[in-house]
Amino acid sequence: DMAVRHYTLDINLSTPGKMLGKSLQKLLPGLLSIFHEQELSETIHDTNGHGYLATFVGKNGRLVVLRVHSHGLVTIDLQCHEDDNIAQLDNVSDQKLPVLVRGAKVDRYWPTADGRLVEYDIDEVVYEEDSAYQNIKILHSRQYGNILVLDGDVNLAESDLAYTQAITGNGRENYAGKEVLILGGGDGGILAELVKQKPKMVTMMLSMLNVDFYVYACCYFTVINMCCELQILIEDCVPLLKKYVQEGRTFDYVINDLTAIPISTSPEEDSMWEFLRLILDLSVRVLHPKGKYFTQGNSVNLKEALSLYEEQLGRLSCPVDFRKEVVCVPSYLEQWVFYTAWKK
Amino acid sequence: DMAVRHYTLDINLSTPGKMLGKSLQKLLPGLLSIFHEQELSETIHDTNGHGYLATFVGKNGRLVVLRVHSHGLVTIDLQCHEDDNIAQLDNVSDQKLPVLVRGAKVDRYWPTADGRLVEYDIDEVVYEEDSAYQNIKILHSRQYGNILVLDGDVNLAESDLAYTQAITGNGRENYAGKEVLILGGGDGGILAELVKQKPKMVTMMLSMLNVDFYVYACCYFTVINMCCELQILIEDCVPLLKKYVQEGRTFDYVINDLTAIPISTSPEEDSMWEFLRLILDLSVRVLHPKGKYFTQGNSVNLKEALSLYEEQLGRLSCPVDFRKEVVCVPSYLEQWVFYTAWKK
Repeated sequence: DMAVRHYTLDINLSTPGKMLGKSLQKLLPGLLSIFHEQELSETIHDTNGHGYLATFVGKNGRLVVLRVHSHGLVTIDLQCHEDDNIAQLDNVSDQKLPVLVRGAKVDRYWPTADGRLVEYDIDEVVYEEDSAYQNIKILHSRQYGNILVLDGDVNLAESDLAYTQAITGNGRENYAGKEVLILGGGDGGILAELVKQKPKMVTMMLSMLNVDFYVYACCYFTVINMCCELQILIEDCVPLLKKYVQEGRTFDYVINDLTAIPISTSPEEDSMWEFLRLILDLSVRVLHPKGKYFTQGNSVNLKEALSLYEEQLGRLSCPVDFRKEVVCVPSYLEQWVFYTAWKK
Repeated sequence: DMAVRHYTLDINLSTPGKMLGKSLQKLLPGLLSIFHEQELSETIHDTNGHGYLATFVGKNGRLVVLRVHSHGLVTIDLQCHEDDNIAQLDNVSDQKLPVLVRGAKVDRYWPTADGRLVEYDIDEVVYEEDSAYQNIKILHSRQYGNILVLDGDVNLAESDLAYTQAITGNGRENYAGKEVLILGGGDGGILAELVKQKPKMVTMMLSMLNVDFYVYACCYFTVINMCCELQILIEDCVPLLKKYVQEGRTFDYVINDLTAIPISTSPEEDSMWEFLRLILDLSVRVLHPKGKYFTQGNSVNLKEALSLYEEQLGRLSCPVDFRKEVVCVPSYLEQWVFYTAWKK
């Protein structure tokens, strides 16, 4: 592997306390031995009055950046190759920030929808492909099982039954004998959950963006014992929904699992929002008067995007009421909002 | 604030692809403008054949470290003060790793029990104290509410009803009219959950380590409408449990919420394990023959520590059977193991 280990160590000299003393005591011997055990060539930089800055370069590729900022913050960066084990630093138990591994073959950092840095316990890249539509990865996590990552976004993991339950109504619905339309759902999770309840018929519409379906479905699709009629349509859902509207066809449930709502908060300009509004409007139009529409929202922290979505719900050609629910989907590492809407 | 923003940008030149091309295109203009808009003093370092290394120091405290490793990995580190907004970099949407904020007053990085780097959405330090026993923090998270952090470990958040449910049997138990012993539970969550079910009596033993109870309980304790007898004993639980054993007193449920099981895997040396075994043995001895013992384990990834715990369960003076359950506690950002044990 060509990865680089990057240790970051920060000490705030202006707020002393017993924790700081302990940190320093544990830190210094390790640091000093790293500096001393080999000839490090030191450069002291002119910072124009912005504190002290020294860089140390070792013969084996080690790099240390030591900064003492004028307000008392000391930051130490230590970079080394992955196979260059600096045992002293691994034993500094007060070292707060776990080491960053940069440029590894198996990337462990997959930020949340609300932009936070999180490290996953990924131990294997099971599958990777650039399809015509997106970058598809299946990563194996020790605790979440296989995770489907589309264009760098964590989509769903084997641990995430909570997602499937939330987008099918969290056990409050009775699907027996009902007609269900699933938009998207290419991972098969929703279908697997629904067929347990013997619906009359399930129609899955996989848009062209979901055409990669067959590639990754194998992850989740165990043998589904079909006990209802199933129609899988691999077509763009907009013309199909329009055709259903014209025919006056209705469904008891419409489950939209196409994408999370856009993060962008400029609805007038963003084609994602336009697409979302169109699908939403058509979906509600094919909904039975007593039917329910289920969909995922986004991270609970993306409040502007969520309000904007709720605003769209108020602007449909059929008026709807809605409720939302915040759910913990294990592999997301953030709280996720789900919506239920129904005709007024 | 005296924080430093640290951007890390990595590009792997040896695995070209369309994602790489996009990254570079988006990255380069921003980087170049940072380099050009001010006089950066450049130092090119001798790396002894370990690739190219240059550092750039700006007049306002900016520091750029540019490394091209011999195997084709390019790492760029850019540090600046928090109020020095580098708008160009924030707009580099392909920049994979969210910015690290170092030395901030409100620390957002609280590693998981299995040692992964995770960033929380902390927006406020509600409370902080170094008590005689531990460092106590109450941090406010936008999505998890108040989080109790003891000695740097995330303990429980307002979002974590799943924890309380798991450690009380996930709704499978009937506490009505029962005698319950809680070891620890200083945050009040378990008590609040139990009293809904009208147990006959709840005894809470808060060891000296839990004496900080009153300080942080205010976070969780809403007014509990007591409908059972409650005895709160602020005493070391070992002598009390021994006294109960001598008296032949038993409980229908013992809920041990003192600490997670130790991460250390050297049971013979570690006093934490000795303490755990002692408490465990005494707890089972005060358990009614048909009673149940509930406790938390640790991260599902700490397999060695969990096996060691299970080994202890096989070495008690009263033989027990046990089962475990993996639960998603929202604020933990990792899957957590809970144990139920009962007398054979």
